[in-house]
Amino acid sequence: MKLSDICKHINKECKSDIEIKNLATLKEAKKDSLSFFHNSKYINDLKTTKAGAVILKEEDAPLLPKEAVAIISQNPYEDMAKVTSLFKYTPSEKTYNPTLKEGARVANSANFGKNVVIGKNSLIMAGCYIGDNVEIGDNTIIYPNVVIYHNCKIGNNCTIHSGTIIGSDGFGFAQTIKFYQIGNVVVEDNVEIGANCTIDRAALGSTTIKKGAKLDNLIQIGHNCEIGEYSIIVSQVGLSGSTILGKGVIMGGQSATAGHLKIGDRAIIAARGGVTKSLEGDKTYGGFPAVEIRLWRKMQAALMRLVKRK
Amino acid sequence: MKLSDICKHINKECKSDIEIKNLATLKEAKKDSLSFFHNSKYINDLKTTKAGAVILKEEDAPLLPKEAVAIISQNPYEDMAKVTSLFKYTPSEKTYNPTLKEGARVANSANFGKNVVIGKNSLIMAGCYIGDNVEIGDNTIIYPNVVIYHNCKIGNNCTIHSGTIIGSDGFGFAQTIKFYQIGNVVVEDNVEIGANCTIDRAALGSTTIKKGAKLDNLIQIGHNCEIGEYSIIVSQVGLSGSTILGKGVIMGGQSATAGHLKIGDRAIIAARGGVTKSLEGDKTYGGFPAVEIRLWRKMQAALMRLVKRK
Amino acid sequence: MKLSDICKHINKECKSDIEIKNLATLKEAKKDSLSFFHNSKYINDLKTTKAGAVILKEEDAPLLPKEAVAIISQNPYEDMAKVTSLFKYTPSEKTYNPTLKEGARVANSANFGKNVVIGKNSLIMAGCYIGDNVEIGDNTIIYPNVVIYHNCKIGNNCTIHSGTIIGSDGFGFAQTIKFYQIGNVVVEDNVEIGANCTIDRAALGSTTIKKGAKLDNLIQIGHNCEIGEYSIIVSQVGLSGSTILGKGVIMGGQSATAGHLKIGDRAIIAARGGVTKSLEGDKTYGGFPAVEIRLWRKMQAALMRLVKRK
Repeated sequence: MKLSDICKHINKECKSDIEIKNLATLKEAKKDSLSFFHNSKYINDLKTTKAGAVILKEEDAPLLPKEAVAIISQNPYEDMAKVTSLFKYTPSEKTYNPTLKEGARVANSANFGKNVVIGKNSLIMAGCYIGDNVEIGDNTIIYPNVVIYHNCKIGNNCTIHSGTIIGSDGFGFAQTIKFYQIGNVVVEDNVEIGANCTIDRAALGSTTIKKGAKLDNLIQIGHNCEIGEYSIIVSQVGLSGSTILGKGVIMGGQSATAGHLKIGDRAIIAARGGVTKSLEGDKTYGGFPAVEIRLWRKMQAALMRLVKRK
Repeated sequence: MKLSDICKHINKECKSDIEIKNLATLKEAKKDSLSFFHNSKYINDLKTTKAGAVILKEEDAPLLPKEAVAIISQNPYEDMAKVTSLFKYTPSEKTYNPTLKEGARVANSANFGKNVVIGKNSLIMAGCYIGDNVEIGDNTIIYPNVVIYHNCKIGNNCTIHSGTIIGSDGFGFAQTIKFYQIGNVVVEDNVEIGANCTIDRAALGSTTIKKGAKLDNLIQIGHNCEIGEYSIIVSQVGLSGSTILGKGVIMGGQSATAGHLKIGDRAIIAARGGVTKSLEGDKTYGGFPAVEIRLWRKMQAALMRLVKRK
Repeated sequence: MKLSDICKHINKECKSDIEIKNLATLKEAKKDSLSFFHNSKYINDLKTTKAGAVILKEEDAPLLPKEAVAIISQNPYEDMAKVTSLFKYTPSEKTYNPTLKEGARVANSANFGKNVVIGKNSLIMAGCYIGDNVEIGDNTIIYPNVVIYHNCKIGNNCTIHSGTIIGSDGFGFAQTIKFYQIGNVVVEDNVEIGANCTIDRAALGSTTIKKGAKLDNLIQIGHNCEIGEYSIIVSQVGLSGSTILGKGVIMGGQSATAGHLKIGDRAIIAARGGVTKSLEGDKTYGGFPAVEIRLWRKMQAALMRLVKRK
């Protein structure tokens, strides 16, 4: 699509007329990508982006590499949301036969979109729906009634338990305007995901579950999260959008994070911990707002003394 | 069913023998409805009800409009529970062809109860189950493996993501006696519901998701809740039965409410907030029990000082 | 399988060569069972086990009944995990016709593993998957899109709502080694389970939901839990592995427990309560860590005074 046509859609003028093939985050954008900037946490990505064009506020335009076209907006998030409707996916009721590699087996009642590939010796059980262009690696087991939306990728030696939904829309609205979720979910090798989890597709780019991560049941992974290698996520955890977990992070049951933050390698978040800002690795945290767990325990003890003193 | 037959079922005598066609809340009852009164929060509904008959305690009988028949009970909730078994729905293994309006499309593997109507250009994807008498509006997309129980109504321009269950039984037991859930769920226009949510049908009347509301994933909406127009409910929120949200309410991730309370228009409940009583609109609340968020922050700060002082 | 072959798999020497037919908990083990001991909470089970052989640390071996073979290990949990891979279940894409007792009805789109038995007048609705060797009692209703994994048992007069997953793997990993979940789930008579719950199969033995228990929606029951008779579990509760609830326990919405603990008969855990140690029955608890609820309320009040005094 021509940049000029996109600009027309959001009532902007364009200085250039390059061809835009996709929408992308600043970090992942290439010269045929359109991106946007609205959150100062990503300022370094703005300075180094390879995007062909970026929607951003006038005051941020000087930071943009000069190869990129600046599309000035008073509300970049809202204007980008409007653009996503031009690139949105069209779901369908139709089903197709998948490509089965050697030894792959699929239940008769499983349904597949277009261009699905199932890897060697992998198993898709009854009642699953695997959407358009999904690729599933080798030796992977998908238990009954799992749904994997279009364009997602699942690695080798993975196990996904029943009722889990991978690639549903992230929760993105610019006021009442839907930010169509253009990205996907990438699940790397040796990942195990429990039952009835929801792993949202990225707004742009990928939500990523890195190799060896283990997820329990009823877990919510927001759009654009990145779960580090060999991380362990216990039941009912909720990660808001764009949470980045390092390697070997452990999140206890019902713990949660606010969005757009990083948790360092091997950090442990105790059960129920509510993380509100980025945390260093190699430490244990608890409470809400989460602090180092020793401090949280002291707070609880102090409160108890306060009651008893009375 | 004759009121006398209903009364016989719960070992009561009847002064009248009107025809009862349905069970209803005091507010929604008509003259062919039987209702009950057991929670003083609904005393105004009692005084103005149009019900043909009401099960209630002897001391509350004087408040009942004189057109209505009073059925005196020491335990109205338990007796009404017993009555619900006379009106309970009988589920079935059978499936039928739905009525498809112009441009409606349904996957081969989707299953339908009796008398289902799918609106213009709407799409029902693989593995969905749409129960008896469900009506789905125009331009609505239902992603794979969604279940919508009998008698529910879904509006125009809605999106419902995979694994979400609409119209399952509310959690109602009078001790060990099941209160059969006779009501339904009504989802109005322009609503978006994420993956693996559960929206319970009303005990009597309707659980309502009003127009423009947006729900994220893994959310629990109890029976008889009302979600106000354009409200935003983030992931893993839990609303107990009969919670009434005003317009434009925002509930952060993992927040929750106790039952039978109201939250005013445009109130914001921060992530994890636990609401235990009705709250005024246009304010921000947090903590558990939820208070105005500035107060909650002061409480956290005071606790921190207490630890450091030591 | 010969004990010697099992020992070879984990690089141990065996003093005996008995036939091992199954893996079991210390309590449930018989003389053809192999068990293991790694958590001091189960020391009484160790002293009285009827297991044919037990993997345990050298210092614990003297406590083992002399009829049992001791297999000495520096890491019994990890070695047992390795053994579970020899007994793991092989899932399949194939489906079979179930045995239907008189009056049983199943939807055409429901799928069944081998040797499934559906009791009298029971109903299996559209899109369910019922795994190998599952037995379902009489007069039980399974709503659409429920999944019940292999070897689980469901009693009489039960109701299971849509999207619930019974018998998915418990969350068990010895570091990066999967502890295959060999056990099952047993749901006794008159149990009602809401929508989108996850009830994990036992690592060894059974996860048990006892008669008359009522579960709401989106509840997580970890492996080897035992839910006492007539207990009531409200929405979004999470029970960690090996939680034992007594009779008539009530757990409020979003409450939770740490693992390997007991809650006494008729205890009430208020909404959001987070139980971190075993609790006596006949009392009400709240807060996190959960304490008697009067104490928790005093703690909240003290904190409030602290803020106001300032």
